Amino acid sequence: MAIPRNLPPLLYADTERSADALYFGRVNVPDPFIAFGARGRKYAVVSALEFSRVRRESSFDVVLPLEDCARRAAARWPRRKVGPAEIICLLAGELKQSRFAIAGDFPAGIYAKLRQLGLELVVAEGQLFPGREIKTAAEAAALREGNRCSACGIAAAEHVLRASRIKAGRLIFRGRVLTSERLKFAIEVACLEAGAVSLNTIAAGGDQACDPHERGTGPLRANELIIVDVFPRVTATGYHGDMTRTFLRGRASEAQRALVAAVRAAQRAALRALRAGVNGQAVHAKVVETFTARGFETKRTPKGSSGFFHGTGHGLGLAVHEPPRVSTVDCFLKKGTVVTVEPGLYYPGLGACRIEDVVQVRAAGPELLSRYHYDWELR
Amino acid sequence: MAIPRNLPPLLYADTERSADALYFGRVNVPDPFIAFGARGRKYAVVSALEFSRVRRESSFDVVLPLEDCARRAAARWPRRKVGPAEIICLLAGELKQSRFAIAGDFPAGIYAKLRQLGLELVVAEGQLFPGREIKTAAEAAALREGNRCSACGIAAAEHVLRASRIKAGRLIFRGRVLTSERLKFAIEVACLEAGAVSLNTIAAGGDQACDPHERGTGPLRANELIIVDVFPRVTATGYHGDMTRTFLRGRASEAQRALVAAVRAAQRAALRALRAGVNGQAVHAKVVETFTARGFETKRTPKGSSGFFHGTGHGLGLAVHEPPRVSTVDCFLKKGTVVTVEPGLYYPGLGACRIEDVVQVRAAGPELLSRYHYDWELR
Repeated sequence: MAIPRNLPPLLYADTERSADALYFGRVNVPDPFIAFGARGRKYAVVSALEFSRVRRESSFDVVLPLEDCARRAAARWPRRKVGPAEIICLLAGELKQSRFAIAGDFPAGIYAKLRQLGLELVVAEGQLFPGREIKTAAEAAALREGNRCSACGIAAAEHVLRASRIKAGRLIFRGRVLTSERLKFAIEVACLEAGAVSLNTIAAGGDQACDPHERGTGPLRANELIIVDVFPRVTATGYHGDMTRTFLRGRASEAQRALVAAVRAAQRAALRALRAGVNGQAVHAKVVETFTARGFETKRTPKGSSGFFHGTGHGLGLAVHEPPRVSTVDCFLKKGTVVTVEPGLYYPGLGACRIEDVVQVRAAGPELLSRYHYDWELR
Repeated sequence: MAIPRNLPPLLYADTERSADALYFGRVNVPDPFIAFGARGRKYAVVSALEFSRVRRESSFDVVLPLEDCARRAAARWPRRKVGPAEIICLLAGELKQSRFAIAGDFPAGIYAKLRQLGLELVVAEGQLFPGREIKTAAEAAALREGNRCSACGIAAAEHVLRASRIKAGRLIFRGRVLTSERLKFAIEVACLEAGAVSLNTIAAGGDQACDPHERGTGPLRANELIIVDVFPRVTATGYHGDMTRTFLRGRASEAQRALVAAVRAAQRAALRALRAGVNGQAVHAKVVETFTARGFETKRTPKGSSGFFHGTGHGLGLAVHEPPRVSTVDCFLKKGTVVTVEPGLYYPGLGACRIEDVVQVRAAGPELLSRYHYDWELR
């Protein structure tokens, strides 16, 4: 159900896990806290540990001390164990606000108690803040900065791969066998230097890379495709970058070259189709068509899949994965949304390739928010 | 309400945000997925992107492909938009399991739909998996490893501070003014090298450190107290470390020395009081008594607080903050729980000090899981 207009939001989340909470208050709070709208103003309830900082740095209009609110709630409900639900109910009563909109990921425990206490909560279908999907110029700049950090990570990986010697099929970097772990370390340090934290960095080679979410482990080899996927979070803003390049140190086979060429062609086809108002399905179909035309089949078996078996892209912002989607799902792309474009092919035995960039959707087409070259065969 | 015995758990979460999900399946899944118990077995439903990896690496007994489950749910409810709730309901029906226990942070959107669909969900008061609170020997070892990573970070900070020259009250490291940002970078790289990711690292000096969750920004100064708080997550296991030391580069004043001595004395008093069966309140009271006896007062004002105004400690595990608590709250400490012991004093104008270690609660007293020296005045 759509949220009725003017129904203010209610949140109970920390800003590490909840992009909504960060979007609403524009301040980092590491533990879950109460935040809501009422009478046109934004309220937060935080502990003494956070109080001064949140007052100083956030976009909340009113910051209330948790300890004081808890004391007042305990006085009102002397027989209940006072928690977030009682405090929310107390403040809602004081502000004469009995209905709120909540996100689908609002905690069920508090939801159940608030309904018991008589509050009306409407669960938003989709985003609690639909405005999160359309990125302002400042947000686009923050995402560009995120991708500058991604590019720093990918450049670090390319540097290490180029600097590695090949010895009996193995890669030797500074005298030691190069592993996925070591490559990820170089990437993550580069991201930290650039001002971002890269979690779950992927640097996976050969058959490991055929599992799209396998991060990679153990020695990397010469002449194998190595997927490097870096999606750091900028510490200052919370916005992400998300870029993937696939490298090979040594000499590629013709089959590997055909694979990489198909993925890049599919990415270009998707980018050509992408503009405001188009259905994500149609963009995804261009990728599928490109692969089919070049003879790359997709197979889904109970033991796993090969070919192209994920979406073409997803929204990027304060969360790494957010609306809209560019996939088999029906989803029109609005002007100003920011999405990844990341086709990939995965064939155990041959290897895997994924190439990913980030664009903002404009009326005339996509505007690239990520920049890194596409040379991949590092001889 | 307590969870009825044998009521199996139901989760919908990713393992980055949900320690429960990681505890249940022992595998990293970056996007929310369905997991539940039924008939004594552990089930997971994951997309093609995760399927092979989760089957290979997790502790789930049955891993089902999301796409196939979604198809079957769509056939059963042709007029509904199929999401996690419909898939859960389909599988629950097939397995004849109509009741589940859920955590308080289960998503309210799915909770509301599942109740509509006729499933009975019992919200756990406290932890969904009470076993998470008592740490096994393997978990204690993982937390020790987390604190080895913390210690690497703190050692890196100490090294940078010792290597800094003092020039007109400023600290100069490798020819440039030393900032909180630069110190955090050194700490975070050291944690990465050790095998952990340190988010929200605190390296705050002077009055900044008087806000306990202020991470620190800008130049650090000679002769001021600098709080270094490092709580990294070990990448391989998901378990955390959590340690704090307070340093001063230069020469401390007598007032600063009295402050640091009081905090260390309070920590020792808490450690002496800590054993299985004791109330966390009593341990916390020892800290408060120590500060009061030494003349350190606590003041809470609408504009902020000074003195000692946070809990003495919290449980540590797959989450940085988890039960039990060592604070003003009534909470008996069970044998095998792991808690931080981290008294602190915060006085704008004078500065702040916090000292934090991690212990496992034993019958005879605490067993230290963190090790780092307490020298703090770096002349």
